[in-house]
Amino acid sequence: MRKGKRTYRTQARARVHWKAIRGGVTAPEGYLAAGIAAGIKKKGLDLAVLFSSQPATGAAVFTLNQVQAAPVVLSKKHLHLSHGRVRAVLLNSGCANACTGERGMQDADLCTQSLASHLEIDPHQVIVASTGVIGVPLPIRKVLSGIGTAVSALNSRGGNAAMRAIMTTDTREKTFAVQGRIAGSTVRIGGMAKGAGMIHPQMATMLAVLTTDAQVPASLLDRVLRRVVERTFNCLTVDGDTSTNDMVLIMANGASGARMEALSLAHFEKGLQRVCEELAKSIARDGEGATKFVEIHVKGAASFEEARRVAKVIAHSPLVKTALYGEEFNWGRILCAAGYSGVAFNPDKVSMSLCGISIFRNGTAVNANRARGERAMRAHNLQIGLDLAAGTADARVWTCDLSHEYVNINASYIS
Amino acid sequence: MRKGKRTYRTQARARVHWKAIRGGVTAPEGYLAAGIAAGIKKKGLDLAVLFSSQPATGAAVFTLNQVQAAPVVLSKKHLHLSHGRVRAVLLNSGCANACTGERGMQDADLCTQSLASHLEIDPHQVIVASTGVIGVPLPIRKVLSGIGTAVSALNSRGGNAAMRAIMTTDTREKTFAVQGRIAGSTVRIGGMAKGAGMIHPQMATMLAVLTTDAQVPASLLDRVLRRVVERTFNCLTVDGDTSTNDMVLIMANGASGARMEALSLAHFEKGLQRVCEELAKSIARDGEGATKFVEIHVKGAASFEEARRVAKVIAHSPLVKTALYGEEFNWGRILCAAGYSGVAFNPDKVSMSLCGISIFRNGTAVNANRARGERAMRAHNLQIGLDLAAGTADARVWTCDLSHEYVNINASYIS
Repeated sequence: MRKGKRTYRTQARARVHWKAIRGGVTAPEGYLAAGIAAGIKKKGLDLAVLFSSQPATGAAVFTLNQVQAAPVVLSKKHLHLSHGRVRAVLLNSGCANACTGERGMQDADLCTQSLASHLEIDPHQVIVASTGVIGVPLPIRKVLSGIGTAVSALNSRGGNAAMRAIMTTDTREKTFAVQGRIAGSTVRIGGMAKGAGMIHPQMATMLAVLTTDAQVPASLLDRVLRRVVERTFNCLTVDGDTSTNDMVLIMANGASGARMEALSLAHFEKGLQRVCEELAKSIARDGEGATKFVEIHVKGAASFEEARRVAKVIAHSPLVKTALYGEEFNWGRILCAAGYSGVAFNPDKVSMSLCGISIFRNGTAVNANRARGERAMRAHNLQIGLDLAAGTADARVWTCDLSHEYVNINASYIS
Repeated sequence: MRKGKRTYRTQARARVHWKAIRGGVTAPEGYLAAGIAAGIKKKGLDLAVLFSSQPATGAAVFTLNQVQAAPVVLSKKHLHLSHGRVRAVLLNSGCANACTGERGMQDADLCTQSLASHLEIDPHQVIVASTGVIGVPLPIRKVLSGIGTAVSALNSRGGNAAMRAIMTTDTREKTFAVQGRIAGSTVRIGGMAKGAGMIHPQMATMLAVLTTDAQVPASLLDRVLRRVVERTFNCLTVDGDTSTNDMVLIMANGASGARMEALSLAHFEKGLQRVCEELAKSIARDGEGATKFVEIHVKGAASFEEARRVAKVIAHSPLVKTALYGEEFNWGRILCAAGYSGVAFNPDKVSMSLCGISIFRNGTAVNANRARGERAMRAHNLQIGLDLAAGTADARVWTCDLSHEYVNINASYIS
C-alpha cells in the first residue's frame, strides 16, 4: 500500500495531495444513500440506493462476458439514452438476475421505473446492478416494496449501509474516499465495491460505484474511467471467472463547484486511480477463502499488456495459488505458468524475486537465498517479482491464494 | 467409455475390430521394459527403461510451454538428428530436471550416453523424459547407477513396472493396449501415461509412451500422432497448468510384419485413437483430488477448435469445478464460463443438459427438470452437454472436479 502511494506521487508532476477520508460514496458533497433489508437474502441488508441531489454526469464500464445479466443490458441502454447523465443507482445482492430471459429484463425495467417515480427523476437516469445466484428470478414484490423503504432512508451518511447491502460472500467492507484541492476548490472522490468470488474483471469488476463532487463532462469522465479501470480493477483476479454482472460506475455532480478541465483532469485521474486501486486491492485481500494477499509485479516486458498477461496467468494458476496457501517454496510453478502465458521471453535471462529476495537468475536457482526465500513465504502479504528482460514495460496484478476455505464456500454456495 | 467406442466404430468405414489386451507398452512384439527404484524418490519405483529389440521409427509431440525442461530440449534434438528413429526411452519420476540451466542439459545428456552404451545403440536414438519437482537438479549418480540396474531387468512383460516407475501423485495405473488385424497381419498398439496435476496439455501431456509392432515410416507416424493427440490428450485438463515437461512419444518397430500404407494407416489411426483416448480419460479420472470424472460435450459450434475452447474454459473454471465437487445444481456458472470463453454465440439460443437431462433452453431454465437435474449431480461420472446453436462442429473435453484434496496435495507437494 505504501508502495502504491509512492508510485502515484512520483508520477504526478504538479502534486495534489489526496488525503484519505471517511464516508465512501457519500463522502463527496450532494450524495445520499441507504442500505436496507428487503428480504431478498435470508438475512442482512440486500438493497441499496444511491442518489445525487443535483444533476450529475455518469460513465460506466461493463463485463465483456457474452452472457450478460438483465441489469447490465438495461444500464447500458439507459446510459446511452440519457447521454451520460446518471441521478440514481439501485443495487441488490442475493440474486444476479442473470440467465433469466425476458422476465429478467421486465423485472429490471420495473425496478428502475419504480425508483424513478419515487425520486421524481427520468427513468433513463437510473442505473441498476444485481449480484448473487445466476439463473434465479428476482423476488420482484420484495424488491419493489424495498425500494420505497430505501428511498425513505436516504441520507448523507448512508454510504456505509449501501456498501454493506451489496456484500455476498464478502467478509470485509470495501469502501474508500479521498479529498484534495484542485485549482482552489476542494474535490472529493468516494467509492464502494463488492466482490470475493467470480472475480476476473474484464472491463470492470462486479459492482464498484464511484462518486465525485467535481464537475466532469460525461465524455471526459468516460475516458478517465476507462484508463483508470485498465490499471486497477482489470489488474485483479481471484479465480479467473469473469462474472455476468460486472460493472464499475462513476457519477460526477459538480457539488464542490470545481470544474475539471484539461490540466486539472490529470490531477483528478490520480485521485480516482488511488480510490480504484484501494478498492481493487481490498477485493483481492477478501478473495473467497484467502489467507494471503499477493502482488505480482512483472517488469522488463515489451508492453503493459504483455506484462499484465504474464502476471495474470501466474495469478490464475491453481498450482501457484495452492503452493502460496501451503507456504511452499515451489517457485518452479511460477516460472512454469509464465512459460505458458503465450508471451515471448528467454527463460535463461529471466530473474525472479520473492518479497525482494532474489531466488532465480540467468536460468538457475539462487541457492544462497533459499532459506530466506522459504521464510519469506510465511508473510501474509507476498510480493512476487519477475523480470522478463524483454523490454521496459511493467504491470502489477493483485490476487490471493487458493485455500480449503475457497472449496468450502464454492462447493456449498446455494445450499 | 461405451460411448467413445461406439463413436469410433461408426467413424471407421471398413471396420477393424480393436480388442483390448493386457501388457501396456510391452504388449506389442519386440519391446522390453523395466521399472526400478533408483532412490530419486524417497521410496518406490522411479526409473524406467523401454527398449525395442529391433530398429524402430519414432515420433513425438512436446509441451508448448516456453520454459522447457532439459529432457524435452534434448529429446527434440535427438529426434531431429536421428531422422525419426528411436530405440530406447529413459524415464524418471521424482525430479523434472526443469529450470536447472546448463547443468540440467549436461545431466540429461550424460543419462542418454550411459543408456546408449549399456544397450550398444546410437545415443541419438535415445529419448529421455523426467517428471517431478521443478528447479531441482537430478541426483545424477543415483540415476547413472539405476540405469545399469534397469537395463539388467529389461523383460518382455516389464510394461507395468515401467508405468509404475513414472507415477508421481498418480493413484491409478494408466496403461492400455489393443490388438487388431489389418490386411492379414495382427497389429498391437500399447501405451502408458502418467499425470494427475499440472495437466493442461498443449500438444501433449506429461509422459505418455506408445508402442506398436506395426511398421510405420517416421513421417507418417508423426502425422498420425499429431492428429490423434489433438483429439485425445489435447482434450484433457485437470488444473489448466501446462507442464514444462509434457511429452507423448510413439515407437513403431514393425515386429508384427504388418506394414502400414495409405489405406491401412486409417485403421491404424483408429486403434491409436482408442489407446490415447483411454489414457487421456484415465488421467482425468485420476486428476489430483478428483471425486468426479466429467465429460464436457460442446456441440453446435462453428469449428472443432471453438467447441473445444468453450469446453476447456468450462473445464478450467474453479467455480464450476467446486460446484461439481459439492454436487451443487449451480448451472449458471457453466453458462457464465461459456460466456467469457471468447467464442461467439447467442445466449438466448443455447441449450444445456446434465447427464442427458435438459436443464436450460432458449435463454431460461427448464424448471420441470430441476429435481432430476439435482439428483443427476450425485453421479460419479458426469456428462455436461452444451449446444451453442452456432454451427455443426463438436468437441469432448475430459476433466475432474476441484476438491479439498486437490488443495491438500498441492499445498504440501515438496514437504
